[in-house]
Amino acid sequence: MKKQVFALLLSGVLSVSAQQPVDYVNPFIGTSNYGTTNPGAVCPQGLMSVTPFNVMGSESNKFDKDSQWWSAPYTSDNNYFTGFAHVNLSGVGCPELGGLLLMPTAGDLNVDYSQYGSAYTEEVAKPGYYGTKLTKYGIKAEATASMRTGLSRFTFPAGKGNILLNLGEGLTNETGATVRIVNDTEIEGSKLMGTFCYNPQAVFPVYFVMKVSKAPKQMGYWKKQRPMKGVEAEWDGYSGKYKLYTKYNRDMSGDDVGVWFTYDNEANEVIEVKMGVSFVSIENARLNMNTEQPDFNFDKVSTAAREQWNSDLSRVLVEGGSKDEKTIFYTALYHMLIHPNILQDVNGEYPMMESLKTGKTSGNRYTVFSLWDTYRNVSQLMTLLFPERQVEIIRTMVDMYKESGWLPKWELFGRETLTMEGDPSIPYIVDAWMRGIRDFDVETAYQAMRKGATTPGEFNLMRPDANDYFTKGYVPLREKFDNSVSHALEYYIADWNLSKFAQSLGKKEDAKLFYDRSMGYKHYYSKEYGTLRPILPDGSFYSPFDPLQGANFEPSPGFHEGNSWNYTFYVPHDIAGLTKLMGGKKKFVDKLQMVFDKKYYDMANEPDIAYPYLFSNFKGEEWRTQKTVRGLLRDYYHNAPNGLPGNDDTGTMSAWAVFAMMGFYPACPGDVNYTLTSPLFDKVTIKLNPDYYKKGELVIGTNRTHAEEIYIQEVKAGNKKLNGYFISHDELVNAGSIEYKLKATNK
Amino acid sequence: MKKQVFALLLSGVLSVSAQQPVDYVNPFIGTSNYGTTNPGAVCPQGLMSVTPFNVMGSESNKFDKDSQWWSAPYTSDNNYFTGFAHVNLSGVGCPELGGLLLMPTAGDLNVDYSQYGSAYTEEVAKPGYYGTKLTKYGIKAEATASMRTGLSRFTFPAGKGNILLNLGEGLTNETGATVRIVNDTEIEGSKLMGTFCYNPQAVFPVYFVMKVSKAPKQMGYWKKQRPMKGVEAEWDGYSGKYKLYTKYNRDMSGDDVGVWFTYDNEANEVIEVKMGVSFVSIENARLNMNTEQPDFNFDKVSTAAREQWNSDLSRVLVEGGSKDEKTIFYTALYHMLIHPNILQDVNGEYPMMESLKTGKTSGNRYTVFSLWDTYRNVSQLMTLLFPERQVEIIRTMVDMYKESGWLPKWELFGRETLTMEGDPSIPYIVDAWMRGIRDFDVETAYQAMRKGATTPGEFNLMRPDANDYFTKGYVPLREKFDNSVSHALEYYIADWNLSKFAQSLGKKEDAKLFYDRSMGYKHYYSKEYGTLRPILPDGSFYSPFDPLQGANFEPSPGFHEGNSWNYTFYVPHDIAGLTKLMGGKKKFVDKLQMVFDKKYYDMANEPDIAYPYLFSNFKGEEWRTQKTVRGLLRDYYHNAPNGLPGNDDTGTMSAWAVFAMMGFYPACPGDVNYTLTSPLFDKVTIKLNPDYYKKGELVIGTNRTHAEEIYIQEVKAGNKKLNGYFISHDELVNAGSIEYKLKATNK
Repeated sequence: MKKQVFALLLSGVLSVSAQQPVDYVNPFIGTSNYGTTNPGAVCPQGLMSVTPFNVMGSESNKFDKDSQWWSAPYTSDNNYFTGFAHVNLSGVGCPELGGLLLMPTAGDLNVDYSQYGSAYTEEVAKPGYYGTKLTKYGIKAEATASMRTGLSRFTFPAGKGNILLNLGEGLTNETGATVRIVNDTEIEGSKLMGTFCYNPQAVFPVYFVMKVSKAPKQMGYWKKQRPMKGVEAEWDGYSGKYKLYTKYNRDMSGDDVGVWFTYDNEANEVIEVKMGVSFVSIENARLNMNTEQPDFNFDKVSTAAREQWNSDLSRVLVEGGSKDEKTIFYTALYHMLIHPNILQDVNGEYPMMESLKTGKTSGNRYTVFSLWDTYRNVSQLMTLLFPERQVEIIRTMVDMYKESGWLPKWELFGRETLTMEGDPSIPYIVDAWMRGIRDFDVETAYQAMRKGATTPGEFNLMRPDANDYFTKGYVPLREKFDNSVSHALEYYIADWNLSKFAQSLGKKEDAKLFYDRSMGYKHYYSKEYGTLRPILPDGSFYSPFDPLQGANFEPSPGFHEGNSWNYTFYVPHDIAGLTKLMGGKKKFVDKLQMVFDKKYYDMANEPDIAYPYLFSNFKGEEWRTQKTVRGLLRDYYHNAPNGLPGNDDTGTMSAWAVFAMMGFYPACPGDVNYTLTSPLFDKVTIKLNPDYYKKGELVIGTNRTHAEEIYIQEVKAGNKKLNGYFISHDELVNAGSIEYKLKATNK
Repeated sequence: MKKQVFALLLSGVLSVSAQQPVDYVNPFIGTSNYGTTNPGAVCPQGLMSVTPFNVMGSESNKFDKDSQWWSAPYTSDNNYFTGFAHVNLSGVGCPELGGLLLMPTAGDLNVDYSQYGSAYTEEVAKPGYYGTKLTKYGIKAEATASMRTGLSRFTFPAGKGNILLNLGEGLTNETGATVRIVNDTEIEGSKLMGTFCYNPQAVFPVYFVMKVSKAPKQMGYWKKQRPMKGVEAEWDGYSGKYKLYTKYNRDMSGDDVGVWFTYDNEANEVIEVKMGVSFVSIENARLNMNTEQPDFNFDKVSTAAREQWNSDLSRVLVEGGSKDEKTIFYTALYHMLIHPNILQDVNGEYPMMESLKTGKTSGNRYTVFSLWDTYRNVSQLMTLLFPERQVEIIRTMVDMYKESGWLPKWELFGRETLTMEGDPSIPYIVDAWMRGIRDFDVETAYQAMRKGATTPGEFNLMRPDANDYFTKGYVPLREKFDNSVSHALEYYIADWNLSKFAQSLGKKEDAKLFYDRSMGYKHYYSKEYGTLRPILPDGSFYSPFDPLQGANFEPSPGFHEGNSWNYTFYVPHDIAGLTKLMGGKKKFVDKLQMVFDKKYYDMANEPDIAYPYLFSNFKGEEWRTQKTVRGLLRDYYHNAPNGLPGNDDTGTMSAWAVFAMMGFYPACPGDVNYTLTSPLFDKVTIKLNPDYYKKGELVIGTNRTHAEEIYIQEVKAGNKKLNGYFISHDELVNAGSIEYKLKATNK
């Protein structure tokens, strides 16, 4: 009951007439500069998203998915629209999903996307809504979404009009679809997705049912025909071309197939198209569609999506700051709430992990776990703002272990893609556990983590180089670009978390074992360079060594997507030990400051994401955190398409900004202390879920009178002055209020 | 009851120890010289056939389906085997079906057919059985079939063995399939077929369920991947190649997909694979499989197929003649009984004509109607030997009209392919009606025929040039190669038949109308050339005219697959009229003899197929029929792969030989008189179905003492001496015996 009251409380916010949180969101942020977000319609944690697709079919596009590495269905830099893509990823670094391309055209039927696409204008994107005008056709194309269904609304000019569903193209590198005409307004089928980050076995089907609001004059399939040779090519006029099937209406399968509907439209005729999806079956896709959208009502669906967003976003109310800053803040929170998304159908069914079987849940089953990213700050933000969701996310992760034998690493719609490295479920879950999220199968979770931390490498999906790690305490460089140091650093933070978990479960021996392992990072410290440095199998350091090699995502021996500078300080669980290695506080601080001054710092990736907060470990140096964070916000976060530092990484870059703008950051996963920095806003009100946090609200205030007051003079939590620049999670959620006394200089 | 007794009577024959009719069949006849038959396993009128496929994948093959016009799944001229094809056409001139390619291999898994194929040896083909040894692998591969299912038996050497189902390749020019792993021994799916004779809309799906007798060590899909470009191609090692899916087991769709099973075999390990198909649904395919093959029992299935064949072939018992001649005879009868084949599933369901709907029948629903061919002699042979089947064939044709609005022309699995010309259902059905097949919806059949004979051309599927035909009495040449004369000749014979049908139904006005139209052929007679000749729209003859243009299937103005000589005598319903036009008997006979003497006659196609029998219309010239027929049999029919004159045309060439060897031929469709010629065999016993022919048996005897006695001196039917060289159908079936008195010279 309480939960419902809380949800109602928040959803009521929208009725107030003033500017609402949802009004500040700008879905175009991150659609350039490789942010890889998109402006499509989606609900919070929604399975469905409906996104304009503009990355193929024309040289007038600056970026084309087939001519380079490209991982988003849309970019603000392009101008050639080829439809609405259904089910998409937000903020990832590999091409995936972005299929079921729904396109309206006018005039004669043409099913070749390199010809039927259009330039567009008058783009509008809001949470749960996207609209544009296709200049080639004079068609207004709008989209909205519920949790598992999409709805498109096309307003046609008078004359011939067409609706095309292209099942051949999409962002995914998988191909192959099958589709069936059910009746003159409904089709159903499936399309294969996957090969995320070129993992050839991580594939899965999306099942769909699509319904048009008006029966067409005619409908049929198309398929690109296999090129023939010689006399056969002479006889078959469709050889190598798109063939329209005008009479056939049973199953149609192939690499490049689609369905067309033709109409004779009156001026401004509106045709709506709804699409239900499921990852279990066509039947479930239909059930989802009929349950969430029993009729055609665009305004109802888009209003519901908007209200859902406003309810979620209203968990944090900010005051002060510019409109752009509020936009950046709420858009970051919006982006953070897209993944993980639910996977189960309305009847609770979902594809079990790495299995042909179908599971059933009464809660939410989540998917899209980019855990190497999200364990660093998304987990912490979910725990704070959406603990009722976080517990279901963790239950999902433990269930994945039960189903497949392993916790997830980079899970995608029931498939382990094995993208990036480490054992990231451990810090993700342990951090939440330490902060009080405990209503999951703890013993199984522990077993699952222990499996990753103790299984020999040849059988260890999480830690393929576990044997070296167990015996040597580190991972030696065995191949030129094997990311060995990056691997080991992930194992250290995971084992440190696992140690804390073991400790709190009373497993003292395990606690000691894993703690000791977490300290193995010291092997990598090179006094010569003052950085971490790869170690060869014989125990000697790798030479010739250049700690700068690996910037800008270039390959680097030992380091993944970064160089030694981006990783050297990534021992958040033992900053004291690292400081000692580096020769004391001053050397540590100077070196860290140099990383920023010399632009060795990479804001676009995760390993060094918490660096700015490390200054606060040293008395008198905390102002550097406050200054640096504010500078990074200013330099990398904008109310513009290029307003993210790089791949959003399913909300990780966004979560960084949300914490930074609220004035605190979880600098070490598994450590319940937040590092303080100065809030960007004058006042931040966090609506806490009273089921988890009985105080129910946290008001963060400042005494700021001028924008340049970015330095902390003093912080009070519930009228109690804090000693130092940390606050524990418990203190924070129970404080009721936190008051920042700020100043304009670091003196 | 009677029917069952009759069937039992015939099926009992096999228990007799002597050489049985089935033992004479050589399924390799017609597998070279473009006969386009195949040596696969099939039951009489069976939906399923399982045929070795050897027309792709290697340059060691003489003929390759993708490098030329090629319409058979197998040819004796090739040597590279790539699997057993399931569901095939026999004796047709366009590539179709020949998919669901099942291949056993040994050693490491390889799914590329250009590599996994094998040479072979020790081929054995018998009705319902085919076997060979794959030399590359040492695997024995055998196949058999029931009406709707196939069964393959693979005997492996010790070690790694694989079973592959290739859904990407096949004889059909359509592509696209979907398949699903049901469990570790069963898969199900569908594959698109069609585009027969390059009709782009005549497509249909085959649904299948396949089960292996032993669970594999591992199984999975493969799919040929779309070629990628640039950096994507670098990252994806499968770009443009076959990818093995090792973990995925939900729906797999695409242009070029397949399923693999791997085994560790002991020496001589036998694995059987059964396949059920349906043209309605996967469920029906499974029902067919489970009903017709509840277990795995190769010998049981192949014995049943053999008994079914022997029962059918035993309707005619021949004595005398050489072993080769018996082989030619029974193989011809065998080939004649492959199409049309049943279409309905064991529950009676079938895809309705040109429809998404499923029909249901308690009888047999037939498909594969190559009617431009079969109305000439297959209809008559079915009426005589299998009247109980013929009535269901005609019911099927009338039902097709009810379902689609048109009688069939060249129907293929529920689709009208519109191959060849004319209105061939009319003579097919009317001929049967005239011979006493009457238990069908006669009134609807008449309406259906009348529709083709009276509907304006723009709405007339059978006669697109009906308007000219109705108003002018002929079809003028409107395009260079428009086959106009061929079209009109088909309309004449159809209308003559329709006239006779109308007459017998008491529709006198119609009878006159259609009879008059049937005489329109006279327009085409050119006194100058003494042949039929195309007419231009202004009524003048086409010039420059060469009556020899069009030989060997080269294009010819006015004539389809032939020249004027091949068509000039094709007025079987008015030989008297044609004789008059030609200037009398002598001129007619001399001219016809010249056609044979100068080799203008084309034994490989249907228009002139009855020419040899026309001599018998003239007193004193009948010996020419007897001599010519015997010469053609000798020259074109052999017990060898090249033993058919050309495309068997779903049994039409074979039916020609069956009649010729028995001693009579239906030279004019719709005319119940057979033209007599001398039987090749000394004695022919025809078991007549007593439900239709109460005499129950016809014994044809000769007094031949030497093989050169090929000329008729006298014929007695039931002790009554015949006047002339014709015998009506009624006389024949009621004669009890026909006795040929033969002589060695034509004097």
